[in-house]
Amino acid sequence: MLSQLEERLVAELNRIPLIDPHSHINPAVPSSKTLADILGYHYFTELAHSAGLPKVRIEEPGLNPREKVARLVAKLPDLENTIQYEWLLEMCRRLFGFQGETITSANWEALYDASLAKLSQPDWETRVLAESGLEGVFLTNDFDDPLEGFDTQRYIPCLRTDDLVFHLEKPDVRERLGAASKIDLSGASSLKKSLGVLFEHFKRRGAKACAISLPPDFTSEPVSSATAEGVIDGVVRGRSLTPDERRSLSSFVFWSLSEFCVEYKLPFDLMIGVNRRVYEDGVYQGQDLFDQRCSLIQYRKLFNAFPQVTFPISVLSHGVNQELVSYSWIFPNVVTNGHWWYSNIPAYIELDCRSRLEAVPQTKQIGYYSDMYKLEFALPKFNMYRRVLGGVLARDFVTARRWSEERALRLGKMVLRDNVERIFGVG
Amino acid sequence: MLSQLEERLVAELNRIPLIDPHSHINPAVPSSKTLADILGYHYFTELAHSAGLPKVRIEEPGLNPREKVARLVAKLPDLENTIQYEWLLEMCRRLFGFQGETITSANWEALYDASLAKLSQPDWETRVLAESGLEGVFLTNDFDDPLEGFDTQRYIPCLRTDDLVFHLEKPDVRERLGAASKIDLSGASSLKKSLGVLFEHFKRRGAKACAISLPPDFTSEPVSSATAEGVIDGVVRGRSLTPDERRSLSSFVFWSLSEFCVEYKLPFDLMIGVNRRVYEDGVYQGQDLFDQRCSLIQYRKLFNAFPQVTFPISVLSHGVNQELVSYSWIFPNVVTNGHWWYSNIPAYIELDCRSRLEAVPQTKQIGYYSDMYKLEFALPKFNMYRRVLGGVLARDFVTARRWSEERALRLGKMVLRDNVERIFGVG
Amino acid sequence: MLSQLEERLVAELNRIPLIDPHSHINPAVPSSKTLADILGYHYFTELAHSAGLPKVRIEEPGLNPREKVARLVAKLPDLENTIQYEWLLEMCRRLFGFQGETITSANWEALYDASLAKLSQPDWETRVLAESGLEGVFLTNDFDDPLEGFDTQRYIPCLRTDDLVFHLEKPDVRERLGAASKIDLSGASSLKKSLGVLFEHFKRRGAKACAISLPPDFTSEPVSSATAEGVIDGVVRGRSLTPDERRSLSSFVFWSLSEFCVEYKLPFDLMIGVNRRVYEDGVYQGQDLFDQRCSLIQYRKLFNAFPQVTFPISVLSHGVNQELVSYSWIFPNVVTNGHWWYSNIPAYIELDCRSRLEAVPQTKQIGYYSDMYKLEFALPKFNMYRRVLGGVLARDFVTARRWSEERALRLGKMVLRDNVERIFGVG
Repeated sequence: MLSQLEERLVAELNRIPLIDPHSHINPAVPSSKTLADILGYHYFTELAHSAGLPKVRIEEPGLNPREKVARLVAKLPDLENTIQYEWLLEMCRRLFGFQGETITSANWEALYDASLAKLSQPDWETRVLAESGLEGVFLTNDFDDPLEGFDTQRYIPCLRTDDLVFHLEKPDVRERLGAASKIDLSGASSLKKSLGVLFEHFKRRGAKACAISLPPDFTSEPVSSATAEGVIDGVVRGRSLTPDERRSLSSFVFWSLSEFCVEYKLPFDLMIGVNRRVYEDGVYQGQDLFDQRCSLIQYRKLFNAFPQVTFPISVLSHGVNQELVSYSWIFPNVVTNGHWWYSNIPAYIELDCRSRLEAVPQTKQIGYYSDMYKLEFALPKFNMYRRVLGGVLARDFVTARRWSEERALRLGKMVLRDNVERIFGVG
Repeated sequence: MLSQLEERLVAELNRIPLIDPHSHINPAVPSSKTLADILGYHYFTELAHSAGLPKVRIEEPGLNPREKVARLVAKLPDLENTIQYEWLLEMCRRLFGFQGETITSANWEALYDASLAKLSQPDWETRVLAESGLEGVFLTNDFDDPLEGFDTQRYIPCLRTDDLVFHLEKPDVRERLGAASKIDLSGASSLKKSLGVLFEHFKRRGAKACAISLPPDFTSEPVSSATAEGVIDGVVRGRSLTPDERRSLSSFVFWSLSEFCVEYKLPFDLMIGVNRRVYEDGVYQGQDLFDQRCSLIQYRKLFNAFPQVTFPISVLSHGVNQELVSYSWIFPNVVTNGHWWYSNIPAYIELDCRSRLEAVPQTKQIGYYSDMYKLEFALPKFNMYRRVLGGVLARDFVTARRWSEERALRLGKMVLRDNVERIFGVG
Repeated sequence: MLSQLEERLVAELNRIPLIDPHSHINPAVPSSKTLADILGYHYFTELAHSAGLPKVRIEEPGLNPREKVARLVAKLPDLENTIQYEWLLEMCRRLFGFQGETITSANWEALYDASLAKLSQPDWETRVLAESGLEGVFLTNDFDDPLEGFDTQRYIPCLRTDDLVFHLEKPDVRERLGAASKIDLSGASSLKKSLGVLFEHFKRRGAKACAISLPPDFTSEPVSSATAEGVIDGVVRGRSLTPDERRSLSSFVFWSLSEFCVEYKLPFDLMIGVNRRVYEDGVYQGQDLFDQRCSLIQYRKLFNAFPQVTFPISVLSHGVNQELVSYSWIFPNVVTNGHWWYSNIPAYIELDCRSRLEAVPQTKQIGYYSDMYKLEFALPKFNMYRRVLGGVLARDFVTARRWSEERALRLGKMVLRDNVERIFGVG
């Protein structure tokens, strides 16, 4: 049994309406159509593949949803211990009325049908938002997203910039930039103008953040316009860049984005530490890993150069969390942001959450984001976090520091909700 | 008091018969002859030395066993806090009937005599195996071990390859290789043939794994035969290698071993992260340490190149455990393996065990190995692990996730026993 | 509620008189004059600044103490979650009779006046020492400190050497060295003579340790006199050094200090891992951070070369603690020392304390030091540590290992007090 204190705190945390500050929701198709969309989440496909399910069984072209689910369900027993499986179970119980202990070959078809009935309801999107206590959800928008056709109060645009910083050498990225900005890329100055057009568009359409994911060896450095000019000229001419030039180009774009974050008053979410495509034959979105040898000292110049920009920071490696705590405690413009991906399991969340609550001003902590692709995942993922948070509040604050429960809950609400509102200017 | 739930789970875990997937047992002399063999375990000699006992007092030539124990016992009070001392106490209580609170100058002689009586029993080996619930024990065999004179069902051969990968420059290693393989080392191709002979021999004698320990800066890279040819030619001629050549040679041998693991269908245990002889004047086996700046990204090419080989991985640095969890969650051929050496204390085991149970498929976790040199150590070392495991199952599964105790115990058995059987093909 | 066992253990730990093995106390002004000295501690100014209080509001020239407190108090609500705020509250309650739940705009003036009355008592210094159970406090003395005008039994001198190792290029440092040693710096040999004079002076005045803080990329290497000669000649002539020369100079001085630690039988406190002035516009003492990519392997040569010197080691990064545990378990001359700065929060202390108690001989652990600038901070900082220690003793020793409470408390006293006496030769 959890302690009754913990249960009471978690129950109260569950009542706080949420604004989810980071997701990959597609506002045109925000919720799942079938259980295949849910079991198709990379956490399940990659774990099933890791446990032995061949990639081709999962990604076979033309595979129908029911068959895809059948194949994944057959492998689920190997994953029953994982916390990701717990997300699945909790979601099925809470949203689809599932009552089994586990999902098995004997019960999955009934679950498939029951979930299909729910997911097919015309107002499912609204229902799942309500059931999950979600009032707003941040998106992850390509830089050339028209941002049209959805309610930007509910689905809050966020300018994702990985392509600009790391893939400008690719002709299709440059074409997309040209099309979105109506500016031909000819040099450093035209590139900056293009970026300005993007920011103008995003800001006008209600964007509340700029965001990027960064590899563990990325170091932020200012780059002179002259250097950038030469490199961009090379890119435009289709010349292959040297590794040094590639780094200069990335640095130049990254630094320029930070400058626009000043001008457009946008926080810049940095998601630090991912190596892409480490497992080359992995399933879709199940190929990336990391190198724990990464430090926020690599962002020293950035944090000093842009005191006006708030940097909500996520770190992929649990080992960097102490640096995140310390940098947030010292730099006014650095704030902690959620528990990302490979750090998003209770064993790591607990220590990371405790250390942040002990040493970072309470106004500078964004407790959690879902990172979800489909709305159904907010409920179990936030629940996982709220249970950890409730436990930490119970033990470290109410018990050890003799706080009242009301006071502990105010701290919980601060990191779960209030800081999202204030830091991003939403709600 | 531990919770009753925890006590029940640990008691049940204790009933599961074990196959110990990694030890340094010498099958010709598997158990201790006197208490000096037990107190001579490097954990005790290095801790006693660290606490001030001069090396010469421990390693004096011709020192008789009783006097060696007397000297070490005099230093034991400084170590009473350590978990290694707890292994000693628990072993003495359970195997030798010791009843003291601690081992002192007043009681050690009685303990010495009582243990000697037990250790001298003709069937002691069988008794200690039975008392410890051990059905099989993996060995660590030199590449030129004849593997004769013992029951390879009970003592399972494992081809240890450090000498081949890191010490081929030494004439005696090359001589041993020549003698074992009956092949003269003349170039890359003859080296591969020699390795093939070793694998053939080990496989025929029932070997179930290949194994190696690796320094923290080792990076696995394929090396062309042409490059290898030049380096091996240098070695054969007795030329001293450059650091780059030395790296190439190590990489070439390591990669070749992986190829033979495909051919002979053997898992390849990687024990990652040890720096040898850091403390030059340390006691025997008490000189090695590590550098926490190490990443599994250094094995990226290996994991991609050998999907058919299972790599059970141990990491010396607790800080690399999150990478191990994540790489095992993504790569089908990477599995977690035990808690190694400096990470083999409850404070680190607990967090490492929790994170693995939360995010790695249950079929891909080898819970524990003893790493012992003498059979008496399996009991207290596995007990330490089972207590941590029982606590994690109690709190994270039965309490937090409302699993039944039976279900939690099935998970415990999976990581303690079933996975050893399936991954190594034993039992 | 904490368990009654824990409460009992903590109450007993609180009775143990302390010698604080590291502080920044100025023996001429050891205690605070007003609450501004307390709230002016960098932990509060940097956290308030991080939470949004402009540096100029805190460091305005001529700011009177009451106004400074008013400005900081206004920002305190943002920091109420932090453990540093808890130090403040506990201190105000225990030393100044404060009874509020938090410090607010409504009650701070009464607190200011009440604390002023206490702090102004002529015997306050003696009272606060007694109330805190402090029998001795190590200082941090500049190398040219005359060490006069205070009781060196109560305030124990410690030779701090950062300036010598890292700032000898600065003319004022060389002038201070010349003035303190009465020796003109002309080369390697005169530098060594100067250092000898400093050691002679410190030793005669009762110094019990040499100390230094080191950046994460520092590596200890012996440097030949010839190399040192050339570099020192350059320094004396005012030539700007190359990065390599700068490293050589630092290494040479550091190695020479270690040699004098042999001669003068002084432990050498190494505080490893700080990057200075990372946040350039931070408040006073609130600018330093770290890079977790640091390893004790960088001190391999030092630990081997100076077996006669005890090195009490603090690490700034929690991620290096396992190395500290392991190096202390292997090297006789390495001991663990406290919980430093960014690692000095319960979330990290707990794991670090557990791992040390599990694997380092009990005689080789210095549990805690205050690092304080004013005497009032010893009480709440040691209390924080004692609560963590009491919890670990309760759970890991009395409960899990069935130790008697008396025995657990002896272990507690060993790390809190006895080891300080024996390792530094005080008390």
